[in-house]
Amino acid sequence: MAKRPTIHDVAAAAGVSRGTVSRVLNDDRYVSPASHAAVQRAIAETGYVLNRAARSLVTQRTGSVVMVLSEPQERLFEDPNYSVLLRTATRRLAERDVSLVMMIAGNDGDRDRVVRYLRGGHADGVFLVSTHAGDTLVDALVDIPVAVVAQGSVIGRENVIPYAAADDREGARQMTRYLVELGRRRIATITGPLDTPGGVQRLEGFADILGRKASKKLIEHGDYTQLGGESAMARLLERVPDLDAVFVASDLMAAGALSALRAAGRRVPEDVAVGGFDDSTVALSTHPPLTTIRQPLERVAEETVRLLLALIDGAEHLDPVILPTTLIVREST
Amino acid sequence: MAKRPTIHDVAAAAGVSRGTVSRVLNDDRYVSPASHAAVQRAIAETGYVLNRAARSLVTQRTGSVVMVLSEPQERLFEDPNYSVLLRTATRRLAERDVSLVMMIAGNDGDRDRVVRYLRGGHADGVFLVSTHAGDTLVDALVDIPVAVVAQGSVIGRENVIPYAAADDREGARQMTRYLVELGRRRIATITGPLDTPGGVQRLEGFADILGRKASKKLIEHGDYTQLGGESAMARLLERVPDLDAVFVASDLMAAGALSALRAAGRRVPEDVAVGGFDDSTVALSTHPPLTTIRQPLERVAEETVRLLLALIDGAEHLDPVILPTTLIVREST
Repeated sequence: MAKRPTIHDVAAAAGVSRGTVSRVLNDDRYVSPASHAAVQRAIAETGYVLNRAARSLVTQRTGSVVMVLSEPQERLFEDPNYSVLLRTATRRLAERDVSLVMMIAGNDGDRDRVVRYLRGGHADGVFLVSTHAGDTLVDALVDIPVAVVAQGSVIGRENVIPYAAADDREGARQMTRYLVELGRRRIATITGPLDTPGGVQRLEGFADILGRKASKKLIEHGDYTQLGGESAMARLLERVPDLDAVFVASDLMAAGALSALRAAGRRVPEDVAVGGFDDSTVALSTHPPLTTIRQPLERVAEETVRLLLALIDGAEHLDPVILPTTLIVREST
Repeated sequence: MAKRPTIHDVAAAAGVSRGTVSRVLNDDRYVSPASHAAVQRAIAETGYVLNRAARSLVTQRTGSVVMVLSEPQERLFEDPNYSVLLRTATRRLAERDVSLVMMIAGNDGDRDRVVRYLRGGHADGVFLVSTHAGDTLVDALVDIPVAVVAQGSVIGRENVIPYAAADDREGARQMTRYLVELGRRRIATITGPLDTPGGVQRLEGFADILGRKASKKLIEHGDYTQLGGESAMARLLERVPDLDAVFVASDLMAAGALSALRAAGRRVPEDVAVGGFDDSTVALSTHPPLTTIRQPLERVAEETVRLLLALIDGAEHLDPVILPTTLIVREST
């Protein structure tokens, strides 16, 4: 195997000093455009790979980022979406030799510890997952010198914290439009928490299609848990016994809704058509399997990582990335 | 609400200087026994709670520990045991205002990054989970100044790395003895990986009871995954069609074994009695529910955390903690 190229090889190939190469690697401003270009070319030619351990000594970087899950820890294991996010982010960061550590911020004590950890300079970046509006953690992050991105926008911070997300609103439109096309007349919805973008935008998409038909009594709120979906469905049946379809803002809540419908003796899809959101592994494990909206979660995670690495590397402004969703039809509609 | 007592209040109550209190808090040896006692009394009287953020400035502590899972990340979500470990450890550490970060060390790249992270001084301690014999990570830890404990012994490092564990060997004896008492004649076993203490000791317990009857052909090896348990069971049925009982070294593998038995048209427990190990949530979700060995996983996690905090606080030698198991009888036997 050929010897791994060093910073010396890059300097030689670029015809500049080792210090110049080092300044380029560290995004130092005091490098002439010409030298900068030469070094970039040399890096490409030599196939030089940054040794982050060595780099961290120069730049004070830790070579690690934190994924912060702003939910009770139980949710991490209940909702398969987190497994996909963690796996994808870990793999992508590994390609850049950046390690991912995970922290749970399910209560104030946890949030204080996350903030202290970041103040301690133990991470180069933060990858926020399912952060709710008004999260005190987000406020605390403002005066900590660390790169911050989010999977899904942080309500009220859309212009401050770069994010990648699925097109929640359009996805909800796709599902609601489909239920209407099936000839369903009384279409209800179970939303996610309204302090999360998925909660708000999936409800907006539902209302976009039904307009004035989307009356208050047809809208129930859930918390993205299976149990929450079950009780929300029970409340809807209580209030609107003749509903013939329900769009549930997550597959996990939809699984709960199916139990409530079964308990109430309603047949799915004959009596009530059920549409979910996510196309997570849950959608295939339910009886019947769920018609749902696929959100490209792996791509969302990849894009979020890309934004984070760009910020760490000194990017000034980054636009949010919104990725398209797809209607997946199965036996529940 | 009363003002939170400060180190000054403690010093005043103890009639010593603030510096003396600080030295006591930092386990500094140069404090007279009398002052030490006075400060301890004052801390109790005033209800002073250590501000770890402040403390870390004094002691260079980070106030965080890392739970390192030496398995592919998928296992974290497949095996409910990890959820219990993570939840319990997080809660216990929170009581001491120590934050838990989690890292996955499923491959060499991951291990290198974990080592680099620890060399970087980003954690006060390491909580090893399901570490296999000969794990290069363990070798690397030797020359890093960080406290290290393990959940379950690390084979070959039993005297170096303090650990808490369930009594795997006795648990296996309990299950095997029970299967014998049921009158089963051809009892097989599916072990865990033999580079893990649970793999080795649960096999030893099985052999302790069956003696020469525990022939090679009755022993198959699994990897603690459901799929691994399923294929191991299939191999056993191939080799020993007349087996009438099987002790499976984990509930998850036992769930897989049940599928293989169903596929082979064997009735459980009429034709084949199946015993698991863990008493995790899996044991209740199988058909039929599993007879299994309950290991006190929460207590194991609590004891492992206790050992880790003791090490961080400067303990010299710590004995391993072995906790008793219990036979839980359900419909699979």
